[in-house]
Amino acid sequence: MARLAELYATVAADIQAATDVFRDELDSDQPFIRELCRHIERFHGKQVRPALLLLSARACGGVRHEHRVLAAVVEMVHIATLVHDDVLDEAESRRQAATVNTLAGNERAVLLGDFLISHAYHLCSSVDTQAARLIARTTNEVCEGEMMQVAHRGDWELREEQYTEIIRRKTASLIGACCLLGARYAGADERTETLMARFGVSLGMAFQIIDDLLDITGDESVVGKSLGRDVAKGKLTLPLIHYLRECAPRAKAEMLDLLTSDAPDRQARIAQRLAHSDSIEYARQAARSHVAEAQSAITELPPSPARDALSAVAEFVLYRRQ
Amino acid sequence: MARLAELYATVAADIQAATDVFRDELDSDQPFIRELCRHIERFHGKQVRPALLLLSARACGGVRHEHRVLAAVVEMVHIATLVHDDVLDEAESRRQAATVNTLAGNERAVLLGDFLISHAYHLCSSVDTQAARLIARTTNEVCEGEMMQVAHRGDWELREEQYTEIIRRKTASLIGACCLLGARYAGADERTETLMARFGVSLGMAFQIIDDLLDITGDESVVGKSLGRDVAKGKLTLPLIHYLRECAPRAKAEMLDLLTSDAPDRQARIAQRLAHSDSIEYARQAARSHVAEAQSAITELPPSPARDALSAVAEFVLYRRQ
Repeated sequence: MARLAELYATVAADIQAATDVFRDELDSDQPFIRELCRHIERFHGKQVRPALLLLSARACGGVRHEHRVLAAVVEMVHIATLVHDDVLDEAESRRQAATVNTLAGNERAVLLGDFLISHAYHLCSSVDTQAARLIARTTNEVCEGEMMQVAHRGDWELREEQYTEIIRRKTASLIGACCLLGARYAGADERTETLMARFGVSLGMAFQIIDDLLDITGDESVVGKSLGRDVAKGKLTLPLIHYLRECAPRAKAEMLDLLTSDAPDRQARIAQRLAHSDSIEYARQAARSHVAEAQSAITELPPSPARDALSAVAEFVLYRRQ
Repeated sequence: MARLAELYATVAADIQAATDVFRDELDSDQPFIRELCRHIERFHGKQVRPALLLLSARACGGVRHEHRVLAAVVEMVHIATLVHDDVLDEAESRRQAATVNTLAGNERAVLLGDFLISHAYHLCSSVDTQAARLIARTTNEVCEGEMMQVAHRGDWELREEQYTEIIRRKTASLIGACCLLGARYAGADERTETLMARFGVSLGMAFQIIDDLLDITGDESVVGKSLGRDVAKGKLTLPLIHYLRECAPRAKAEMLDLLTSDAPDRQARIAQRLAHSDSIEYARQAARSHVAEAQSAITELPPSPARDALSAVAEFVLYRRQ
């Protein structure tokens, strides 16, 4: 985290400003709503999306007022999806804190997610219709990705290209929108907008692949959220997709038994089998190549500390432990 | 329903156009999403919100393209809230059809609601920022109303003014926004906008009071959705609030016992007790006085068949059986 803070240094004040916009937007006359909104501030975490939006702005001409508002919007959209995801995943903790569903029950968690998304659009429509339209088009995609994921629960035949399409929609699309919006409101030309969107989408792909990897190989006390949830909820991710595709028939049958068993050490045994295969490395390599794509997209930008920071954030995605 | 169709006659073609916009907006490359979106078309029902928006437009100067789009938006917002409400209420049927949670499970129902609200904002931001901002401000209020309602689950001391505030936010605010948007995009002046908003809010209050009454006194085969859900979910509505406030201490204790019992005939016994009190009439009278307020708000409008239709729709709210 210390290293990320360094990468964000040039936009630290703007991230803080966005956090203030975030908090002001969520004001309510209902004390219990205020309390829940205060609780979810703990989920800000790495603030990858606001930081990428603001660094993109800086790399493309400079940060303006709209960027700070939009940085709050993308973070609010993101946290809304986390809150609903935690309901769907029955997750208990996130960033060392209780999830909203654990703290306040599924009903309030569903409604709080709705409240956050409503406020995100409310805030966004204070910018202009173009931004509002882009954010809404992006959330359309995010919802589709989530729905595709749920539709494939328990589908142990999920193919890599289906997985790729799911994570492109549910994760990469929003990160792509962050970088595009950063460029657009800095006055970038269309070509630069396209490159920045490509940077964000590729980085987002890598980000999700690593996120899924941490769910298998991570250390719960470091990652700060419930792990092993993907398999528990019947979601195949890249290492397992690769393993099931490439391993011998007998190993495949054993892994399928393990995936559908309810043995308490299931998660550890799956992790162990994967550790002895080249499937973890396969997923890492996929993430690496997305990061390389991201980095190559921004080589055309004029050199600047912000461009270097973007490139370094992309690199960081590969090495994060949480 | 036949009578409502008559009242809507002058805007029937526009309601159909809005329904087409609704369907086009929800297109997806994922067959199972298309299928769910086709299923929820059964929930259109009375189309009160699109009809009020379009009748307000006609009463204030005429229907334009924006109105048809906004009519689709408000219906989409409404159906999104129904889909999430049905999850929270564990409801099984709506308009003689299975709820999304029954058909496809809670997870898909939560995500479909998110998908609908995302598309509502997407569509709305094709109009202008003012409309997008107003819709988002309204959904902020709707979410707050829903959250207040959940926060008061099992609160048998709920006061009438708290109930009133809850239904103002969760129901009346959206209907108020419909009438305001109808007026605004017909080129109405500010005074007329205010009157139309007041008309919609008052009508919305009456609408919800009657809706709550039908949950107690209605006939499930006519209403077309699971009844008795309010008490089952610990929600007090106006007749019960009045009953508990006004009845003798012993009757109150008996009613409280009944509310928290799990006797299979609980709902029938509650309805019977209320039928022998003046609490049903009290709630009806409250609805009547909101309708009178609504009707008085539009007396200033120039006389027109659309104004008469608005007044008649308000009246209809009192006598509907579903």
